[in-house]
Amino acid sequence: MKQFSLKDIDNFIKALNFSKVEGGLIPVITQDFKTNEVLILAFANEVAVRKTMETGYVHFYSRSKNKIWKKGETSGHVEAVIDIITDCDKDSLLIKVKQTGAACHKGYYSCFFNKYEDGNFQNIGNKIFNPDDVYK
Amino acid sequence: MKQFSLKDIDNFIKALNFSKVEGGLIPVITQDFKTNEVLILAFANEVAVRKTMETGYVHFYSRSKNKIWKKGETSGHVEAVIDIITDCDKDSLLIKVKQTGAACHKGYYSCFFNKYEDGNFQNIGNKIFNPDDVYK
Repeated sequence: MKQFSLKDIDNFIKALNFSKVEGGLIPVITQDFKTNEVLILAFANEVAVRKTMETGYVHFYSRSKNKIWKKGETSGHVEAVIDIITDCDKDSLLIKVKQTGAACHKGYYSCFFNKYEDGNFQNIGNKIFNPDDVYK
Repeated sequence: MKQFSLKDIDNFIKALNFSKVEGGLIPVITQDFKTNEVLILAFANEVAVRKTMETGYVHFYSRSKNKIWKKGETSGHVEAVIDIITDCDKDSLLIKVKQTGAACHKGYYSCFFNKYEDGNFQNIGNKIFNPDDVYK
Protein backbone atom coordinates (compact mmCIF):
# COMPACT_ATOMS: atom_id res chain seq x y z
CA MET A 1 0.00 0.00 0.00
CA LYS A 2 1.01 3.60 -0.43
CA GLN A 3 1.73 5.85 2.56
CA PHE A 4 2.41 9.58 2.50
CA SER A 5 4.70 11.82 4.55
CA LEU A 6 3.22 14.29 7.02
CA LYS A 7 4.32 17.19 4.82
CA ASP A 8 2.70 15.70 1.73
CA ILE A 9 -0.49 15.00 3.69
CA ASP A 10 -0.61 18.61 4.94
CA ASN A 11 -0.24 19.94 1.39
CA PHE A 12 -2.91 17.59 0.09
CA ILE A 13 -5.40 18.50 2.82
CA LYS A 14 -4.85 22.23 2.17
CA ALA A 15 -5.70 21.74 -1.50
CA LEU A 16 -9.00 19.92 -0.84
CA ASN A 17 -12.42 21.55 -0.59
CA PHE A 18 -14.31 20.09 2.39
CA SER A 19 -17.14 22.63 2.19
CA LYS A 20 -19.46 20.92 -0.29
CA VAL A 21 -21.06 18.43 2.11
CA GLU A 22 -22.41 19.44 5.54
CA GLY A 23 -20.03 18.68 8.37
CA GLY A 24 -16.79 19.24 6.39
CA LEU A 25 -16.98 16.06 4.38
CA ILE A 26 -15.67 14.94 1.03
CA PRO A 27 -17.14 12.03 -0.94
CA VAL A 28 -14.68 9.20 -1.54
CA ILE A 29 -15.05 6.58 -4.25
CA THR A 30 -12.92 3.48 -4.00
CA GLN A 31 -12.15 1.57 -7.16
CA ASP A 32 -10.43 -1.75 -7.81
CA PHE A 33 -6.98 -0.80 -9.13
CA LYS A 34 -6.93 -3.64 -11.67
CA THR A 35 -10.49 -3.87 -13.05
CA ASN A 36 -11.70 -0.29 -12.35
CA GLU A 37 -14.79 -1.75 -10.65
CA VAL A 38 -16.32 0.84 -8.29
CA LEU A 39 -16.42 -0.67 -4.79
CA ILE A 40 -17.99 1.84 -2.41
CA LEU A 41 -18.87 5.50 -2.03
CA ALA A 42 -18.63 6.96 1.46
CA PHE A 43 -17.63 10.22 3.14
CA ALA A 44 -14.42 11.30 4.82
CA ASN A 45 -13.59 14.28 6.98
CA GLU A 46 -10.10 15.74 7.26
CA VAL A 47 -9.07 13.28 9.99
CA ALA A 48 -10.21 10.31 7.93
CA VAL A 49 -8.26 11.51 4.87
CA ARG A 50 -5.17 11.93 7.07
CA LYS A 51 -5.58 8.43 8.52
CA THR A 52 -5.93 6.98 5.03
CA MET A 53 -2.72 8.64 3.85
CA GLU A 54 -0.70 7.93 7.02
CA THR A 55 -1.61 4.25 7.25
CA GLY A 56 -2.09 3.36 3.57
CA TYR A 57 -5.54 1.93 4.33
CA VAL A 58 -8.87 3.59 3.50
CA HIS A 59 -10.68 5.29 6.39
CA PHE A 60 -14.08 6.99 6.33
CA TYR A 61 -16.12 9.09 8.72
CA SER A 62 -19.43 7.75 9.99
CA ARG A 63 -21.94 10.49 10.68
CA SER A 64 -24.39 8.14 12.39
CA LYS A 65 -21.71 6.88 14.80
CA ASN A 66 -19.79 10.19 14.81
CA LYS A 67 -16.46 8.45 14.43
CA ILE A 68 -13.67 7.53 12.05
CA TRP A 69 -13.80 3.96 10.81
CA LYS A 70 -11.15 1.97 9.08
CA LYS A 71 -12.81 0.21 6.17
CA GLY A 72 -12.76 -3.49 7.03
CA GLU A 73 -11.90 -3.00 10.73
CA THR A 74 -14.43 -5.65 11.81
CA SER A 75 -14.35 -8.00 8.83
CA GLY A 76 -10.66 -7.72 7.97
CA HIS A 77 -11.73 -6.72 4.46
CA VAL A 78 -9.45 -3.70 4.25
CA GLU A 79 -8.67 -1.54 1.24
CA ALA A 80 -4.97 -0.83 0.63
CA VAL A 81 -4.28 2.48 -1.09
CA ILE A 82 -2.67 2.23 -4.52
CA ASP A 83 -3.30 5.76 -5.84
CA ILE A 84 -5.18 8.86 -4.70
CA ILE A 85 -6.75 11.03 -7.38
CA THR A 86 -8.92 14.16 -7.02
CA ASP A 87 -11.34 15.66 -9.48
CA CYS A 88 -11.03 19.04 -11.20
CA ASP A 89 -12.63 20.94 -8.28
CA LYS A 90 -10.73 18.99 -5.58
CA ASP A 91 -13.98 18.29 -3.75
CA SER A 92 -14.15 14.52 -4.41
CA LEU A 93 -11.62 11.72 -4.10
CA LEU A 94 -11.12 8.60 -6.15
CA ILE A 95 -8.91 6.05 -4.43
CA LYS A 96 -7.57 3.10 -6.39
CA VAL A 97 -7.31 0.22 -3.97
CA LYS A 98 -6.35 -3.39 -3.53
CA GLN A 99 -9.42 -4.90 -1.87
CA THR A 100 -9.01 -7.74 0.62
CA GLY A 101 -12.10 -9.99 0.63
CA ALA A 102 -15.09 -7.87 -0.37
CA ALA A 103 -16.10 -4.22 -0.01
CA CYS A 104 -19.75 -4.73 0.89
CA HIS A 105 -20.95 -5.71 4.36
CA LYS A 106 -23.58 -7.84 2.61
CA GLY A 107 -20.82 -10.07 1.24
CA TYR A 108 -20.53 -8.72 -2.31
CA TYR A 109 -17.26 -7.64 -3.86
CA SER A 110 -18.76 -4.23 -4.66
CA CYS A 111 -21.52 -2.34 -2.85
CA PHE A 112 -23.00 -1.49 -6.24
CA PHE A 113 -24.87 -4.70 -6.96
CA ASN A 114 -28.49 -3.53 -7.48
CA LYS A 115 -29.07 -2.99 -11.19
CA TYR A 116 -32.47 -1.49 -11.94
CA GLU A 117 -34.01 -3.28 -14.91
CA ASP A 118 -37.64 -3.58 -16.03
CA GLY A 119 -38.93 -2.17 -12.77
CA ASN A 120 -36.94 -4.52 -10.55
CA PHE A 121 -33.64 -4.56 -8.74
CA GLN A 122 -31.54 -7.27 -10.29
CA ASN A 123 -28.70 -8.58 -8.13
CA ILE A 124 -25.56 -8.45 -10.31
CA GLY A 125 -23.21 -8.82 -7.34
CA ASN A 126 -20.30 -11.19 -7.01
CA LYS A 127 -20.87 -12.84 -3.62
CA ILE A 128 -17.58 -13.40 -1.80
CA PHE A 129 -18.65 -14.22 1.77
CA ASN A 130 -21.65 -14.92 3.98
CA PRO A 131 -22.20 -12.00 6.37
CA ASP A 132 -23.36 -14.38 9.14
CA ASP A 133 -19.94 -16.04 9.10
CA VAL A 134 -18.02 -12.76 9.27
CA TYR A 135 -20.02 -10.48 11.58
CA LYS A 136 -20.63 -12.67 14.64
CA MET B 1 -29.61 5.26 -24.29
CA LYS B 2 -31.94 3.66 -21.80
CA GLN B 3 -35.23 5.28 -20.81
CA PHE B 4 -37.63 4.14 -18.11
CA SER B 5 -41.42 4.18 -17.84
CA LEU B 6 -43.13 6.52 -15.40
CA LYS B 7 -44.20 3.57 -13.25
CA ASP B 8 -40.67 2.16 -13.11
CA ILE B 9 -39.31 5.60 -12.26
CA ASP B 10 -41.82 6.00 -9.41
CA ASN B 11 -40.84 2.62 -7.96
CA PHE B 12 -37.14 3.43 -8.22
CA ILE B 13 -37.51 6.83 -6.56
CA LYS B 14 -39.50 5.28 -3.68
CA ALA B 15 -36.69 2.78 -3.04
CA LEU B 16 -33.94 5.44 -2.84
CA ASN B 17 -32.73 7.16 0.30
CA PHE B 18 -32.34 10.90 -0.33
CA SER B 19 -31.78 11.77 3.34
CA LYS B 20 -28.01 11.28 3.58
CA VAL B 21 -26.97 14.60 2.03
CA GLU B 22 -28.49 17.92 3.08
CA GLY B 23 -31.17 19.14 0.69
CA GLY B 24 -32.49 15.70 -0.30
CA LEU B 25 -29.57 14.75 -2.50
CA ILE B 26 -28.00 11.53 -3.61
CA PRO B 27 -24.42 11.26 -4.89
CA VAL B 28 -24.17 10.01 -8.47
CA ILE B 29 -21.05 8.49 -9.99
CA THR B 30 -20.91 8.16 -13.75
CA GLN B 31 -18.67 5.52 -15.24
CA ASP B 32 -17.67 4.72 -18.82
CA PHE B 33 -19.67 1.61 -19.71
CA LYS B 34 -16.80 0.07 -21.67
CA THR B 35 -13.63 0.87 -19.71
CA ASN B 36 -15.14 1.38 -16.22
CA GLU B 37 -13.30 4.71 -15.99
CA VAL B 38 -14.98 6.96 -13.40
CA LEU B 39 -16.00 10.19 -15.12
CA ILE B 40 -17.63 12.49 -12.58
CA LEU B 41 -19.20 12.57 -9.15
CA ALA B 42 -22.05 15.02 -8.64
CA PHE B 43 -25.34 15.23 -6.76
CA ALA B 44 -28.93 14.69 -7.87
CA ASN B 45 -32.23 15.44 -6.21
CA GLU B 46 -35.42 13.53 -6.95
CA VAL B 47 -36.26 15.69 -9.96
CA ALA B 48 -32.81 15.21 -11.48
CA VAL B 49 -33.05 11.41 -11.07
CA ARG B 50 -36.47 11.49 -12.76
CA LYS B 51 -35.14 13.59 -15.65
CA THR B 52 -32.22 11.18 -16.10
CA MET B 53 -34.55 8.19 -16.29
CA GLU B 54 -37.20 9.85 -18.48
CA THR B 55 -34.78 11.25 -21.05
CA GLY B 56 -31.99 8.65 -20.94
CA TYR B 57 -29.40 11.40 -20.35
CA VAL B 58 -27.69 12.15 -17.04
CA HIS B 59 -29.00 15.18 -15.11
CA PHE B 60 -27.68 16.61 -11.85
CA TYR B 61 -28.80 19.22 -9.37
CA SER B 62 -26.63 22.30 -8.88
CA ARG B 63 -26.84 23.66 -5.35
CA SER B 64 -24.94 26.84 -6.22
CA LYS B 65 -27.33 27.65 -9.09
CA ASN B 66 -30.34 25.98 -7.43
CA LYS B 67 -31.37 24.23 -10.63
CA ILE B 68 -31.36 20.97 -12.53
CA TRP B 69 -28.70 20.73 -15.19
CA LYS B 70 -28.39 18.28 -18.00
CA LYS B 71 -24.78 17.12 -18.08
CA GLY B 72 -23.33 18.55 -21.31
CA GLU B 73 -26.16 21.01 -21.93
CA THR B 74 -23.70 23.77 -22.92
CA SER B 75 -20.86 21.74 -24.41
CA GLY B 76 -22.93 19.02 -26.07
CA HIS B 77 -20.86 16.50 -24.12
CA VAL B 78 -23.83 14.51 -22.85
CA GLU B 79 -23.85 11.19 -21.02
CA ALA B 80 -26.29 8.59 -22.37
CA VAL B 81 -27.57 6.15 -19.74
CA ILE B 82 -26.60 2.52 -20.29
CA ASP B 83 -27.36 1.09 -16.82
CA ILE B 84 -28.40 2.41 -13.43
CA ILE B 85 -27.08 0.62 -10.36
CA THR B 86 -27.54 1.44 -6.67
CA ASP B 87 -25.43 0.43 -3.72
CA CYS B 88 -26.48 -1.81 -0.84
CA ASP B 89 -28.07 1.07 1.14
CA LYS B 90 -29.72 2.65 -1.92
CA ASP B 91 -28.26 6.03 -1.02
CA SER B 92 -25.77 6.32 -3.92
CA LEU B 93 -26.09 5.78 -7.66
CA LEU B 94 -23.63 4.43 -10.18
CA ILE B 95 -24.65 5.17 -13.75
CA LYS B 96 -22.86 3.43 -16.60
CA VAL B 97 -22.83 5.85 -19.50
CA LYS B 98 -21.76 6.41 -23.06
CA GLN B 99 -19.87 9.70 -22.88
CA THR B 100 -19.98 12.09 -25.83
CA GLY B 101 -16.79 14.18 -26.02
CA ALA B 102 -15.45 14.54 -22.49
CA ALA B 103 -16.93 14.65 -18.98
CA CYS B 104 -14.78 17.44 -17.55
CA HIS B 105 -15.35 21.13 -18.26
CA LYS B 106 -11.58 21.50 -18.29
CA GLY B 107 -11.43 19.34 -21.41
CA TYR B 108 -10.40 16.01 -19.91
CA TYR B 109 -12.26 12.77 -20.56
CA SER B 110 -12.67 12.23 -16.80
CA CYS B 111 -12.88 14.84 -14.03
CA PHE B 112 -10.53 12.67 -11.98
CA PHE B 113 -7.20 13.69 -13.50
CA ASN B 114 -5.20 14.96 -10.48
CA LYS B 115 -3.10 12.11 -9.14
CA TYR B 116 -1.29 13.01 -5.92
CA GLU B 117 2.29 11.75 -6.10
CA ASP B 118 5.41 12.80 -4.20
CA GLY B 119 3.71 15.90 -2.83
CA ASN B 120 2.47 17.14 -6.21
CA PHE B 121 -0.64 16.88 -8.32
CA GLN B 122 0.29 15.01 -11.46
CA ASN B 123 -2.02 15.54 -14.40
CA ILE B 124 -2.93 12.06 -15.68
CA GLY B 125 -5.88 13.31 -17.74
CA ASN B 126 -6.68 12.50 -21.32
CA LYS B 127 -7.26 15.91 -22.92
CA ILE B 128 -10.09 15.77 -25.44
CA PHE B 129 -10.91 19.42 -26.10
CA ASN B 130 -9.79 22.99 -25.42
CA PRO B 131 -12.30 24.68 -23.07
CA ASP B 132 -11.79 28.04 -24.85
CA ASP B 133 -13.12 26.52 -28.07
CA VAL B 134 -16.19 24.97 -26.43
CA TYR B 135 -17.37 27.52 -23.83
CA LYS B 136 -17.45 30.79 -25.78
